[in-house]
Parts: sequence; C-alpha cells; structure tokens
Amino acid sequence: MKKHIGVIGAGDCSDAIAGLARDVGFEIGRRGWILICGGLGGVMTAAARGCVEAGGTTVGILPGMDKDSANPYISIPLPTGLYDGRNLLVVRASDVLVAISGGYGTLSEIALALKGGKPVIGLETWKDISGVRYVTSAQEAIQAAASLLGETT
Amino acid sequence: MKKHIGVIGAGDCSDAIAGLARDVGFEIGRRGWILICGGLGGVMTAAARGCVEAGGTTVGILPGMDKDSANPYISIPLPTGLYDGRNLLVVRASDVLVAISGGYGTLSEIALALKGGKPVIGLETWKDISGVRYVTSAQEAIQAAASLLGETT
Amino acid sequence: MKKHIGVIGAGDCSDAIAGLARDVGFEIGRRGWILICGGLGGVMTAAARGCVEAGGTTVGILPGMDKDSANPYISIPLPTGLYDGRNLLVVRASDVLVAISGGYGTLSEIALALKGGKPVIGLETWKDISGVRYVTSAQEAIQAAASLLGETT
Amino acid sequence: MKKHIGVIGAGDCSDAIAGLARDVGFEIGRRGWILICGGLGGVMTAAARGCVEAGGTTVGILPGMDKDSANPYISIPLPTGLYDGRNLLVVRASDVLVAISGGYGTLSEIALALKGGKPVIGLETWKDISGVRYVTSAQEAIQAAASLLGETT
Repeated sequence: MKKHIGVIGAGDCSDAIAGLARDVGFEIGRRGWILICGGLGGVMTAAARGCVEAGGTTVGILPGMDKDSANPYISIPLPTGLYDGRNLLVVRASDVLVAISGGYGTLSEIALALKGGKPVIGLETWKDISGVRYVTSAQEAIQAAASLLGETT
Repeated sequence: MKKHIGVIGAGDCSDAIAGLARDVGFEIGRRGWILICGGLGGVMTAAARGCVEAGGTTVGILPGMDKDSANPYISIPLPTGLYDGRNLLVVRASDVLVAISGGYGTLSEIALALKGGKPVIGLETWKDISGVRYVTSAQEAIQAAASLLGETT
Repeated sequence: MKKHIGVIGAGDCSDAIAGLARDVGFEIGRRGWILICGGLGGVMTAAARGCVEAGGTTVGILPGMDKDSANPYISIPLPTGLYDGRNLLVVRASDVLVAISGGYGTLSEIALALKGGKPVIGLETWKDISGVRYVTSAQEAIQAAASLLGETT
Repeated sequence: MKKHIGVIGAGDCSDAIAGLARDVGFEIGRRGWILICGGLGGVMTAAARGCVEAGGTTVGILPGMDKDSANPYISIPLPTGLYDGRNLLVVRASDVLVAISGGYGTLSEIALALKGGKPVIGLETWKDISGVRYVTSAQEAIQAAASLLGETT
C-alpha cells in the first residue's frame, strides 16, 4: 500500500519556503508516495507542484465546498465544507507529516498529529514543540520520512 | 477538472447488486471520472473493482483510522476516524451520486446529497424519495450521470 | 443522568405542525428531559418554546458559527460551523429522537439515528421507513419516548 | 445572551493545576457564564466542579459516544463520537477560551481558537505562542475574560 505523506504549512509563503516545499514535494512524488495536503496556496501549492512534476499524485482536502478552490497541482481535490475541521482529516489521511513554515492552522495540525500518534517532521516551522523531529533541509525531511516509514532512502 | 461520481450502497450485497455496481464502476473508470465511495465492502468493493478494471481511479473515504480497512480496489484510501460522519464527506467530494441498494447509511447519504443540492441517481435503492432520479440499469445510471455532468454519452 | 430527547423537523412549518412540536416540547420540559435540536426555526423553534414554557432546558446545535442564529427559546446555543455536519451531532447527543414533519435534513437525521441504533419516533414525517416507530399525536410520541427510556408515563 | 467560556487543559493534572482550574470554574459559574469543556478528567473535572459549586452550568463536548463518560460535574453531556474532532467544537462553542496546563490536545484547541479569531487566555500552559494572552493566576484569567467579553469585573 502506498505511503501517504502530509505536507502542512502556510497558505502564503516566501519564495525560499516555497522552494523547500517544492523540493519536499518532488521527492514525495519521485518515491511513489502520495502527497496529502490542504489543497490551497503557499506551501500546499509548492509541494503539490513538486510532487506532480516528479510524476506523483496529490490529494487536496479542501476547507470549502468547491473543487475549483484547489490549486492547479492537485490530482484529487476533495471538498469537505468543514473549514478548519478539515485539518484533522489531513492528519488522519497521512502516515507521516512534514510541517513547513505555517501559522495557527499548521500548529493545529502538528498538535492533532502528535495527539493521534502520527510522526511530525518540522522544517522552518513552529519551534520547541516536544515530539516534532526538527530538520534543516528538504533532503533531511525526506530521509526522516523514509526512515519513519521503514523505507531505505 | 475530472468529474467525481460518488457510488453509495450496501456494505454487504447480493451477487446481482454487485454486478450492477461493478458495471457502474466500470463505466465510471472508462470515462475517466473519479469514483468516490466509502471504501468498504459490498457495493463499494464491486464498484471500485469495476472502476480499476477499466483503468480508473477510486477514492475510499473510510470510517475508521486505518488505511488497511479499505477494499483492495481503492487507489486512494483516506481514513477519517469520523465513522458515520464520513458519509457527509462522500457526498461533499462528489459531483453526482449513484445509490445502489443500501441501508440506513446509504439513506443518510441520499438525504445529505439532496439537502446539499447534489443530484442523486437511484438504482434498486430506497424508493419514493422525491428528488432522486430513479433508473433501472447500470447503463441508464451512467447516461443520467453523463447528462447531469454535461457530457455526451 | 437526565435523558436527552432530540426533536428534528422542518425549519419552516405550518401552524398545525408547530402546534404538535410545541406540545412535544412542553412534555419534554415537564418531565425534566433535555431537548436537543438544531436550534433554528419551524419545528425547532416550536419544540424549544414548548420546552422552556414547561421550565425545561434546550440545547441548539447550530449549523453556523454564531450563537445569535439560535431561536429565542434555546437555553444553550452551540455553534458548530459544520453546517449539515451538525445533523450527526444532534443524533449523537440524543438518547431518543422525535421526527416531526421535515425535509431532506430531517431524513438524514432519521437515517443517521437508525444507523447508529438510536430509536426514532415519527410524527407526520417521512413515511414507510423501516425502523421508525410511527405515532399520530404528541401524546403518543411522548409515551413512546418514555417507554423507550424506561420511564413510566 | 449568556457568555460561553471554554476551559481547555490536561485530562490528568496535579493538585495545584486542579486548584487553579477549580478557581477559574468557580468564577465562571458565579458570573453566570456557561462553562464549555471537553467533559472528561483533570482540568475539565476541576473547572466543571468549581462552576457547579458556584451554581453555574457546564457543557461537556465528549469525544466518545456515551453520556456516561462525562465527569460528574457536567450539566449537559454531549457525546459526539468525533474523538479529537470534538476539539474544534469546544472552540466553536466558546466566546473566549482559558487554557490551563495541557498537552497536544490543548495545543490543538489553542491553535484552532486563534485560527478562528477566538481569544485565548493562557495559564501555566504552552508557552510563547503569539496571540495567547498569558496570565499568572485564576483571578487574572477571569479579569482578562471579563474584559474581552466587555463586562466589568
């Protein structure tokens, strides 16, 4: 069964953060993992773009009711109409999560993941949260994910 | 953007009903639509099987926490942990729904779809619900779906 | 522990239906049961009014984000922001449900209740649903509820 | 309309933290505010106890399916069956939240509250979260809540 990697992060971000997210997404796609995200902008767009550029599949669990709200790199847009309630669904659909930058929504996802026993890898995100495995590059994030998933890198 | 067809129905069903569901699923896959379902047995398994046999993609929005609970024909298994709460998500992720046989869970999905303005096509399912477009064969169900989606059959 | 009676029904209704709902609500309040409902108009307003007129307590599980959307007879307004997703919460918060009139939303609640093993008493509502205990007056509805709850009437 | 104060915090806590929670709950009850919480142990039990001791009303939005899982100081136990999904409902039902101690579940509630624009008062809880109004005593927490609610203390 394919592995599901959640990529969570800011809906609006700098080019540097977008670059990190795209690199993470590319490696997810290259390894045949499925990328799960919230389907909107910023980190979600950059990571999804990277993933599809590597030939991968991306799922966008959307806050609103409309498939068209997804960014153009989402293979499977899933409207929920639950708004912030969809954050829990991003967590539950993922085997491992990578948090990149992000605001309160990302923080809620980090917390819900850790509460539910899902590993969280942190890259330029909320600091000093016990339980998050902090890394400093996209490559390290992917290596950490692979290790958590029991795959060789 | 690809069309999403929800197939809802009994988690346990007769061979005759499974045959209908498989035919509906096959046509969904053949047309390049994405099949959305609850990911478990009966009508969900048969429809997903038909869809993947036609080369299509299937999404299973699962009641529990575990990807492994999905039937083997689900391309993208999405655990929700919301149990009956996932029924609403099947509805919200679909553009059109086809109800085949089914019990109370299916009835809840029919009702939630109609409440939300989503078209429902009924095949051997709950009778006499105003708003459901009743059909008598898999072929008719697909023609009705295509028509609702603005596609030529 | 106090019993929770869900009253579900049309958000807009005739005076005759409102009269039935108010009678049901009055008896709920008189017996010290707590009335659970969706907090809006029609049957929900009439039942809540009856309940508070009898000195009872009413909980409104609201679709939107705003306490002020509750009708004036709701003691405890609970915004959820889940829209139709709140229907499941009305069901889960109730020990027994009474359905009075109603459209697709009510039908979804009847189905979710029966799916979850909660008894449903039907009064001038969706017909011929196996598992619903149909009655023909407010008094009968309350007697059926009391019997289901193991209370003498 | 009555004010709703969410009290969020650890499900298991020290006597010192329980004392703080009880004091906060007592003041909530004394002022006629309604206490919203997750309905279980630790901070939730202590705060609910304080509130009912002051004659107040407490709502417990429960993770599971069973009213009996509520602590004995919950006036209105509401089973949701959404497990960690109920955290969002605690937030949405509250006008202001007071976080006391707590683990990942509490952190998710703090984040969801701030994401949704709800004020959060922090007492011996997760540190250094921008947007949280940190206080150092139960009395200060209540004064901050009153001020946020536009009430004189």
